[in-house]
Amino acid sequence: MRDDLLIVNGMLLTLSQEATGIIPEGFVRIRDGIIVETGSMGALPRSCSSQLTIDAAGCLVMPGLVNCHNHCAMTLFRGLADDLPLMTWLEQYIFPAEANFVTEEMVYWCTKLAAAEMIMSGTTTVADAYFYEFAAAKALRESGMRAVAGHGIIDFPAPGVADPADNISTVEQFIDEWGADGRISPAVFCHSPYTCGPETLKKAKDLARSKGVDYFIHLAESRSEIDRIRQQYGLSPVEHLHALGVLDSSTVCVHCVWLDERDLDILQKSSVRVVTCPASNMKLASGIAPLSAMLERNIVIGLGTDGCASNNNLDLFWEMDHCAKLHKVSRLDSAVMPAAKVLGMATFKGAAALGLDQFVGRIEAGKKADLILVDFNKPHLTPFYNQDILVYATMGSDVRTVIIDGQLVMRDKEIITFDLAQTMAEVRKLARTVEVG
Amino acid sequence: MRDDLLIVNGMLLTLSQEATGIIPEGFVRIRDGIIVETGSMGALPRSCSSQLTIDAAGCLVMPGLVNCHNHCAMTLFRGLADDLPLMTWLEQYIFPAEANFVTEEMVYWCTKLAAAEMIMSGTTTVADAYFYEFAAAKALRESGMRAVAGHGIIDFPAPGVADPADNISTVEQFIDEWGADGRISPAVFCHSPYTCGPETLKKAKDLARSKGVDYFIHLAESRSEIDRIRQQYGLSPVEHLHALGVLDSSTVCVHCVWLDERDLDILQKSSVRVVTCPASNMKLASGIAPLSAMLERNIVIGLGTDGCASNNNLDLFWEMDHCAKLHKVSRLDSAVMPAAKVLGMATFKGAAALGLDQFVGRIEAGKKADLILVDFNKPHLTPFYNQDILVYATMGSDVRTVIIDGQLVMRDKEIITFDLAQTMAEVRKLARTVEVG
Repeated sequence: MRDDLLIVNGMLLTLSQEATGIIPEGFVRIRDGIIVETGSMGALPRSCSSQLTIDAAGCLVMPGLVNCHNHCAMTLFRGLADDLPLMTWLEQYIFPAEANFVTEEMVYWCTKLAAAEMIMSGTTTVADAYFYEFAAAKALRESGMRAVAGHGIIDFPAPGVADPADNISTVEQFIDEWGADGRISPAVFCHSPYTCGPETLKKAKDLARSKGVDYFIHLAESRSEIDRIRQQYGLSPVEHLHALGVLDSSTVCVHCVWLDERDLDILQKSSVRVVTCPASNMKLASGIAPLSAMLERNIVIGLGTDGCASNNNLDLFWEMDHCAKLHKVSRLDSAVMPAAKVLGMATFKGAAALGLDQFVGRIEAGKKADLILVDFNKPHLTPFYNQDILVYATMGSDVRTVIIDGQLVMRDKEIITFDLAQTMAEVRKLARTVEVG
Repeated sequence: MRDDLLIVNGMLLTLSQEATGIIPEGFVRIRDGIIVETGSMGALPRSCSSQLTIDAAGCLVMPGLVNCHNHCAMTLFRGLADDLPLMTWLEQYIFPAEANFVTEEMVYWCTKLAAAEMIMSGTTTVADAYFYEFAAAKALRESGMRAVAGHGIIDFPAPGVADPADNISTVEQFIDEWGADGRISPAVFCHSPYTCGPETLKKAKDLARSKGVDYFIHLAESRSEIDRIRQQYGLSPVEHLHALGVLDSSTVCVHCVWLDERDLDILQKSSVRVVTCPASNMKLASGIAPLSAMLERNIVIGLGTDGCASNNNLDLFWEMDHCAKLHKVSRLDSAVMPAAKVLGMATFKGAAALGLDQFVGRIEAGKKADLILVDFNKPHLTPFYNQDILVYATMGSDVRTVIIDGQLVMRDKEIITFDLAQTMAEVRKLARTVEVG
């Protein structure tokens, strides 16, 4: 039986449990979207044949990156309102822009643009969180990416949900429609404790439980959120959600910047997963998440870019660098947040944060074939002593070829799955209406 | 009379005093290495002819970036020792590696590699600071870059200066040899107050004064430096240098992380220039420089990558992003360090920090023709609302063409001035001896 795809001669970073180092010249065999075998070139079975063989000489073959939090469609708002505080940014710029310019068409094209940017910078899985999420899911499906698509829930009129009374039923319908797709997993995205009341937070969790899907929520992102929730409920945001019973092992808490010891205890005991978005937290000046404290408690943490209106770049290599450096300087300890830890958060730990670690995040037999080829024939990647270079010097633009689910999605820097030029043209057209508006 | 080079149809970011916005379709005329005229395409003189015309449609034409601090040759040590504290990193890894592996040949090739990396990411001017600086100056000259080349002075045996007693005379000879070069300006680089005694610091300043060159020094980089200097001299490092009389308008103080009000007063009153290296300060966990306080005192501040062993990437676009975001989050104020301010630090303010602002940093008639073309036909640069995108989303790899001193140094991502493949091969060869050593 022939393989579908065979990658040869590449340096191989498997990140597999047994071997975390680099195989200098390795192969990966792929069949039916699954990694069949991997190893040193010397161990490649002589009888092995494949539909397509890719010579990865000069490249590092590594697991595709996992972006655990994004609002893909917000590419339209990239750079529209910089250097503003989170609440001003959100309430005076982003929410009004969303009210005026978010349509089904906008979500489709702008998500597709985000997919292009992510694919071109080595991301193979994304957790999206937005409205008109069926249009986002369609764009992500067509792009070839693997995705968790979280449909938004919020207690005021939202894009595609004119009456908040319909927010739960809209999401239920979305989950029913997309539940059977292999590469796209639907999810519930409750915006935050300050935009959703207690009843909504609970109903949304009931829906997620009944459908067996994950429940994403922005949590403890800024000090003003802490103040608001404490004023309203006399509790921290974490305590508030805990009291409502929505924190469990299927809940993914995004940001978690402002936590006290009690909050940390709750997050640990409730087995939630956490996503950190350092670049967004830096740009919006939200604060610095206590990552080390969470890691010491064995809380599973993935890395996310957040929407690119608050970043403003979806490059996870860049995000890894931010993550490692920010925590070093904030703790005045350069041993904190070592490169290997951060690389894990962008691959297998990120996969675990999305509940996908049995499928992706490592290159090993039985896993889905989500992998990327990074071109090391570059001055800024010379010399190459060890894999820390992936965190501190590599950029998304070094990614040459991307394979997702065994399918070639980008080859030699050309996206294969859809028309990139058309996508950029459509987004530029939408952007002109924003400028005028 | 014909021009040497004419750039047409590009979006134009001049950063000139009069107009800081973007000309949607502009031209730049270049003759004898100098910008002759610039403006909207409609204003291009009909009689205008040129040896070579470059169509910059789809590109942003902007001033080349100015990297105010680098140890270029340290590309050899990129990624050799990550996630370590500054003093451990320096004294247990970098100094021994330098003692063993820094040769004239190493400095030549590894500086050339740095030049390649900088050119490819849009840097046209660099301030280098190292040993065997004549070899570095030669490499930078051949690369086509504009440079301030600071020869190192340190009070223990150093590469090329076996006996510290020779350190001043060695640098004097270097300055005499390179003083007449147009693109390369020699300078004195006194390593730091903790590696140079008072006599050396003063003698080096005397030399700089007598030759009319700038005096670079690492200053107040880490808390351990503060402790050491206070223990030895009963003063802060800034006070110590001030007492020695080495702080004046020709002194460039690099890092300036740990400053109190008294130090800030001294820096302001002595009219020193300052270089900040946020990525290096983050990675080595040195601390966060009080940039806002320095800017409020009108201290001229340039941006530098530092050597790429402590960064580990020489991309100034990346550095701008780090600079803007780090200060926002550390002050919990996202209005701090706005994009425009940071873009200035990487261009005209950086030029001022190197005393080169009458020559470079802006695109305007009479300035040297140091400019870059950034390709905006990219998903991560779509849409394009305003120039803040240069700080928050653009990467060095988006640079397509580089012109320095009117000369094409890179065209369509191909370096023209020297053999990049050979340079990478030579550095890889050197790196193999480091791995074995």
